[in-house]
Amino acid sequence: MRDQYQEQLDGLASRLAGMCGEVAAALDKATRALLDADLRLAEEVITEDVNVDTIRAEAEEQAFALLALQAPVATDLRIVVSAIHGAGDIERMGDLALHIAQAARRRHPQPVLPDEVAPYFAEMGRVGVQLATKAAAVIRSRDLDAAAELETDDDAMDDLHRHMFTVLMDRHWNHGVAAAVDVTLLARFYERYADHAVAVARRIVYVVTGQMPGPLTV
Amino acid sequence: MRDQYQEQLDGLASRLAGMCGEVAAALDKATRALLDADLRLAEEVITEDVNVDTIRAEAEEQAFALLALQAPVATDLRIVVSAIHGAGDIERMGDLALHIAQAARRRHPQPVLPDEVAPYFAEMGRVGVQLATKAAAVIRSRDLDAAAELETDDDAMDDLHRHMFTVLMDRHWNHGVAAAVDVTLLARFYERYADHAVAVARRIVYVVTGQMPGPLTV
Repeated sequence: MRDQYQEQLDGLASRLAGMCGEVAAALDKATRALLDADLRLAEEVITEDVNVDTIRAEAEEQAFALLALQAPVATDLRIVVSAIHGAGDIERMGDLALHIAQAARRRHPQPVLPDEVAPYFAEMGRVGVQLATKAAAVIRSRDLDAAAELETDDDAMDDLHRHMFTVLMDRHWNHGVAAAVDVTLLARFYERYADHAVAVARRIVYVVTGQMPGPLTV
Repeated sequence: MRDQYQEQLDGLASRLAGMCGEVAAALDKATRALLDADLRLAEEVITEDVNVDTIRAEAEEQAFALLALQAPVATDLRIVVSAIHGAGDIERMGDLALHIAQAARRRHPQPVLPDEVAPYFAEMGRVGVQLATKAAAVIRSRDLDAAAELETDDDAMDDLHRHMFTVLMDRHWNHGVAAAVDVTLLARFYERYADHAVAVARRIVYVVTGQMPGPLTV
């Protein structure tokens, strides 16, 4: 009975880590769709988002069943509660990748991004994918040092996000208001994606230590 | 013992409803700060956000204690799990009101909004406050008809949000890129605030029926 219980707890973590892998792949594809005006890739991300929603629903059901049937306490209870939070965060990461893909599709065959900002979005995409991949690893390993790394990566994302505003506010911006609106929202989607990855890692810190790290500045 | 348990469950709902009241007041003040370039009101919202964060932490602790000590099942378990989700949504509503207040402070003593869009933001503020107030009532009453009303209010918010983009993309927009960036983000903050209020109401539907309503389109 306890073995089966432990298997269920491990299965829940494994499901969440897999979900992180899905949204890492989604952000990678969405970023390429955005940079290359690749409609096929954008459509893939849009179609596949339902998979993330399904895994989230399954993870929640599994967490609910664990609470109802096993009444976990202490660390095990923290694992289940953190999984409920984590599933929500990771689903949102998938939604944000979806929004990026939708922007690429909406403007197709035109590129969404002026050439001068494309490299920053390539970098935001890279950092975002790295954050989701690291969050998956932290869910599996519960390694606190690895969890702390996500904070540093998120600082890099915040710098890129702030820099986008500097570029937009520059008097030399000559791509008009529509492009500025797109860049504003897209940069925010990447930044929020990163925040949710950090939130997932912080919940793992809470699982291990019983304490939440300081609040995320958003 | 069971009486005390029921009191704890009711106390949790009451705490969440109170938290909704706090973020309704925050959005109301933030909107007035935005429309009237009122620095004092903006500062109030910024200072008071920590209260919402505190109530959220208390609600989570209370939910955790209920799970650990009472091992609720069925409807009671749904109440506690929904409270965990709801606390997260409502805290985020507070953060979004905070972001609006920060925008008002950042541009002070200049107004953030061009005159032509101010009435739309007044309306988004009104709808947002109404959504938070209705969410509080739904948490208390668990009335499914009242929960359904939030969907309609959210449609009104989505229409206002879409309309902002039409105004921004219009060739007659002559307020420059910086104002367009502010309007884009601010409109998104209101729209996300509304989404979170709807999510809270949907969790109450789940408490009562055991089924989540269809997914929120975001």
